[in-house]
Amino acid sequence: MARPRNAESDAAILAAASAVLGERGYDGLIVDEIARSVGVAKTTVYRRWPTKNHLVVSVLEDGEPDAAAADSGDDVRDLTSAVAALCSTLDPAPMRRLVAELAAASSRDPALRSEVDRLWARRRDAVAVVVERGVSAGTLSGDSALIVDQLVGAVYYRALITGETLDAEYSRGLVRAVVGPRDAEGTA
Amino acid sequence: MARPRNAESDAAILAAASAVLGERGYDGLIVDEIARSVGVAKTTVYRRWPTKNHLVVSVLEDGEPDAAAADSGDDVRDLTSAVAALCSTLDPAPMRRLVAELAAASSRDPALRSEVDRLWARRRDAVAVVVERGVSAGTLSGDSALIVDQLVGAVYYRALITGETLDAEYSRGLVRAVVGPRDAEGTA
Repeated sequence: MARPRNAESDAAILAAASAVLGERGYDGLIVDEIARSVGVAKTTVYRRWPTKNHLVVSVLEDGEPDAAAADSGDDVRDLTSAVAALCSTLDPAPMRRLVAELAAASSRDPALRSEVDRLWARRRDAVAVVVERGVSAGTLSGDSALIVDQLVGAVYYRALITGETLDAEYSRGLVRAVVGPRDAEGTA
Repeated sequence: MARPRNAESDAAILAAASAVLGERGYDGLIVDEIARSVGVAKTTVYRRWPTKNHLVVSVLEDGEPDAAAADSGDDVRDLTSAVAALCSTLDPAPMRRLVAELAAASSRDPALRSEVDRLWARRRDAVAVVVERGVSAGTLSGDSALIVDQLVGAVYYRALITGETLDAEYSRGLVRAVVGPRDAEGTA
């Protein structure tokens, strides 16, 4: 497939939006200002991203590391790394705010919902791939989807609802609570 | 303490808001219309609830059952009931939407945040009280707060992020995954 003609302006818009989100957060991102700063027409932005929230999802997707899960041979260690990576993505207050805004906006707008779902699924998959590997190998036991819900769910719950810290210590404790007592010895 | 003079109009406002939320959902709730329907001045509503979201929190709190946890003598059964109750509260799409809107709004507004936190804590406590009882009695093992995060977190994660069903079957599977393999036999 040929490179789309507007790939360069898309990349410039994403870079500008990412910088503004980092500096001024969700409320500081104003689509018209992004267009002006990049030197494109507003319609160029809106043709590609119908709302500010669509643009935010693209910025977040663009910033996601590739979910190539580490395979150290120790599934509990790899799982702890994957959960810690999710925690460090979701911990900063501005990111909690972005996620809350996207959850609310996608509950209003089914078209945005499918975009946002892709982003959430990608983050879930980074943990799920390690869980599924462990369950297949017999180093973890239980229903993979439920294990992932317990891990990823606890992290989102803290990010969006309780507001508590999401640090490496929490990741370790959580993974130990979910898989440790049954399985950690088996892989030690 | 004397009953506040405006307790009756507060109750009428809450009843009207609850009816509208049930019929027309979050977007259908318009504070000015509620005031008109109850026959009070707009300022009467806004003096008590500074924003629509404050009013929504009060409606939800008002509708919460008292968190007097059942004590059947079987902690896993009681925990399953508590988790199932949370699931049935959060499952309906209009409720998912309310929770998402409140999470986003409270990330913007620290004053609203403290109101919303009280509501979330009440819902968490209904599960936590059963977990803590089981851990104290030795019928459940592990860190109470982490067990609650796994259970309540998975439920909110489905409600707000994945959009998956929250039914009695999910509650049972989740409780079994969190406490079952280690502890269910001990209490059977």
